[in-house]
Amino acid sequence: MNEIVIHEVGMRDGLQAENEVVATGQKIEWIKQLAETGVDIIQVGSFVNPKRMPQMADTDVLFKYFSKEENKLKDVLLSGLVLNEKGLERGMACGVELFCMGVSASETHSQKNTGMSTVEATERIIAIAKSVMSAGKKVQVSVQSAFGCGYEGKISEEKVLSLVQRFIENGIINISLADTAGHAIPDQVERLYSSINKMDEQVQSACHFHNTYGLGIANAYTSYKVGVKYFESSFAGLGGCPFTAVAAGNIATEDLVHLFQKMDLRVDIKLDNLIAISKEAAEYFKRELPGTIYRTGRIK
Amino acid sequence: MNEIVIHEVGMRDGLQAENEVVATGQKIEWIKQLAETGVDIIQVGSFVNPKRMPQMADTDVLFKYFSKEENKLKDVLLSGLVLNEKGLERGMACGVELFCMGVSASETHSQKNTGMSTVEATERIIAIAKSVMSAGKKVQVSVQSAFGCGYEGKISEEKVLSLVQRFIENGIINISLADTAGHAIPDQVERLYSSINKMDEQVQSACHFHNTYGLGIANAYTSYKVGVKYFESSFAGLGGCPFTAVAAGNIATEDLVHLFQKMDLRVDIKLDNLIAISKEAAEYFKRELPGTIYRTGRIK
Repeated sequence: MNEIVIHEVGMRDGLQAENEVVATGQKIEWIKQLAETGVDIIQVGSFVNPKRMPQMADTDVLFKYFSKEENKLKDVLLSGLVLNEKGLERGMACGVELFCMGVSASETHSQKNTGMSTVEATERIIAIAKSVMSAGKKVQVSVQSAFGCGYEGKISEEKVLSLVQRFIENGIINISLADTAGHAIPDQVERLYSSINKMDEQVQSACHFHNTYGLGIANAYTSYKVGVKYFESSFAGLGGCPFTAVAAGNIATEDLVHLFQKMDLRVDIKLDNLIAISKEAAEYFKRELPGTIYRTGRIK
Repeated sequence: MNEIVIHEVGMRDGLQAENEVVATGQKIEWIKQLAETGVDIIQVGSFVNPKRMPQMADTDVLFKYFSKEENKLKDVLLSGLVLNEKGLERGMACGVELFCMGVSASETHSQKNTGMSTVEATERIIAIAKSVMSAGKKVQVSVQSAFGCGYEGKISEEKVLSLVQRFIENGIINISLADTAGHAIPDQVERLYSSINKMDEQVQSACHFHNTYGLGIANAYTSYKVGVKYFESSFAGLGGCPFTAVAAGNIATEDLVHLFQKMDLRVDIKLDNLIAISKEAAEYFKRELPGTIYRTGRIK
């Protein structure tokens, strides 16, 4: 693995936020193009009830497509988001390599998403994660709303850390903190990851920032400085709901890679290709997307 | 002075970038409203040839207006940008309190702006700064293109530091590094200000970031962490040219203050008022402006 790992989540976190259901053929094209840029992990989709989220209905089809010998992508790991046991079953059946799953640190968010309290959801997710590991597959667990919640506001850092502790106790070391609402500020990012670093040096911390309040890149940079290696981002900054006042896209993959390359990190990633994909996405969705450098170009 | 000082430059750096010449009455309104928010310094305009930049033609009129006893603004310093001896004369005649001036670290930029090399321009600016100090007025000197240049690309850090050294030798301690093109990255920001801190602990460092590549807030946060106290920003992120591919607004004052207030800093500034002014500016210019939180609201 490279020093910094880029986990491209636009196909899932981005496309699930679009009203339009993107055709499977178009998704396959984008996934192939993203794989060619040299990003490390691509999140293909989510195993959610297709009636609840038709945008993700073809997730199994996509995994099956890329599992075929003739379609296998080189040097890239494909991840899928599972929400429950049913999703795990589907993911196991269609060739998911990295299973992602999460628990919200916000009780309100947890209830709305899962109908369970944070504690209940945590124990259930831990059981699912253990099944994944027993099957010899990779797993990543997220703490959602780790930096604040659109419903509840502040989230206690102790609560976030206690969830991380519970994961570690169960042998889960790939742990992401997700800033679902975009509330994180760099000081908080530094505190939380520093605390995790002290808990267990085996932990592979990941970060996932939304740019709702313009702080996403500052938070990602701070994460890097405090030792985070896994970065989740979305081409063109796709994500969040484009039809509300609060546009809450992910940090844009090309903006993040651009910054890292200015620091002489991950210069192997084909930034111009990433920019081209984001330009294509903006044309496809017929609107300006939240990313910056796909519009301005890179620093000369 | 407060721990952090906010220098609002939208009336100058923002309005000079707009094709439309804003009426003097409207400028007076915005300056009054900005003063009421509790920002510390407001840059009223630039003493540039009115034929070259009609947007700034009323700078003297504005200073004279706010010099009158009945119009004096409380608890705010008014700054003006001077480019040469003629500007100094005009500024002295109309009541400027803080004189700002700059030298570009990029030879190409310096030649285009002033017709002089960096060294020539530096000596001339130092002479002007000394006149200001002799007259008992405040002065701030900027190194423009300190982090990179749209024409030249990389700018040597040694060159930037040698200019800073030259200012210090001449008794100028209020020194700003301006990221004219938006090329700065946080690592570079940390290196340059750390070096300045080591040169002379009396120096009051200022920073001025454009958000061309989405890195402005990350750079400002990094500046804060390395001890910078003076922050130049523009309401609604005005600045740069709105009619080119590379939109190069300043960091938005309300976005910056929002971040600081989440860190329990400068909670005295009326953020909601700042947001209201930026909303008004967006209506005035009839387009979406680059700032973020005037559109999304603050973190609840």
